[in-house]
Amino acid sequence: MILYDYFRSSAGYRVRIALELKGLKVERRPVNLLRGEHRAPAYLATNPQGLAPVLELDDGAVITQSLAIIFYLEKLQPGPALLPEDPVLAAKTLSVALTIACDTHPLNNPRVVNYLRDELHTPDAGLDEWRRHWILEGGLEAVENMIDPAPFCFGSSPTLADICLIPQLYSARRFETPRDGFPRILAAEAACLKLEAFRAAHPFNQVDAE
Amino acid sequence: MILYDYFRSSAGYRVRIALELKGLKVERRPVNLLRGEHRAPAYLATNPQGLAPVLELDDGAVITQSLAIIFYLEKLQPGPALLPEDPVLAAKTLSVALTIACDTHPLNNPRVVNYLRDELHTPDAGLDEWRRHWILEGGLEAVENMIDPAPFCFGSSPTLADICLIPQLYSARRFETPRDGFPRILAAEAACLKLEAFRAAHPFNQVDAE
Repeated sequence: MILYDYFRSSAGYRVRIALELKGLKVERRPVNLLRGEHRAPAYLATNPQGLAPVLELDDGAVITQSLAIIFYLEKLQPGPALLPEDPVLAAKTLSVALTIACDTHPLNNPRVVNYLRDELHTPDAGLDEWRRHWILEGGLEAVENMIDPAPFCFGSSPTLADICLIPQLYSARRFETPRDGFPRILAAEAACLKLEAFRAAHPFNQVDAE
Repeated sequence: MILYDYFRSSAGYRVRIALELKGLKVERRPVNLLRGEHRAPAYLATNPQGLAPVLELDDGAVITQSLAIIFYLEKLQPGPALLPEDPVLAAKTLSVALTIACDTHPLNNPRVVNYLRDELHTPDAGLDEWRRHWILEGGLEAVENMIDPAPFCFGSSPTLADICLIPQLYSARRFETPRDGFPRILAAEAACLKLEAFRAAHPFNQVDAE
């Protein structure tokens, strides 16, 4: 399997954590989204939508969307499970993951920020304010009330909630978002960052980091 | 179980379709998001995050996020299955659902459009252009290349992909988004709209429709 992703992409970071937790090996091919490599003809020949991360299977089939890739990995190798077995707890875990993946992260995608800058002429200060606003409202503020770490978001092993939370926190730091008032989130983060899987998946530990 | 949702909400519409397809009965309690009923003290007492849709279980536990609710319903009553059994096909189905749930719908949420209007002073014409832009780019344009209806998005029965697509098309019509050039999407829609489950879940068929 080949994983196309960009070191700084939150969505790519999620997939990398899942791969590391499951001990699955893939060939990783970096795609620099900032330099537009995802719109280059060679890349579009493999991935017509020009997205990353993308998982290319050995038969050439491609899977897009980080959570769809992770659900596929979960079927490919069920252990360690990334969702609790209890249906209600699994739903609550997924709910945290989706709060980040649907309500937080997409609003700060480069394509969205570029639209604000280029089409709505939002100045740089306004862009920074936009980024921080969505990371907090609907994002970290919501998640803080949804978890009760022990020590991970949902129990004694990392789940899809942690997999989505840690890259979002990396992004919060990049954009200097205040993180006071989130003791539960920071406790879950501390537990995750003790694990080699989370460290190996970190953006700065990728070959394309700059 | 109690479902709190707003007739016009795309996310609520998804949950209603899933409930209808599975023949599951819930008590539906409308929450008017436009009038701010989700921020009223009585509502916040049950749902501190002030979100809708929310599924409240008989023991008082609440599940937020439409796709988390639908995954819970899938476990509660596995048939008819909302994801294909084949792992790659299931991943592709989920990928279409997430393309809509992550990359399209959240950008046009009322809270985002309100921010554009109130904080960035985007005029009404700019708001309409914003809505249509994201419904098309990353949304319908992407999905059109991801499906090959037979007659539903992925085979002979509706899946999570159809459940996310139909509410997004309702939204596309509301905001007068051009739908030419999407023959596959319109074919899947035609198949869905023949089913009573999709008709019963339609916004206009809810008691709070106005």
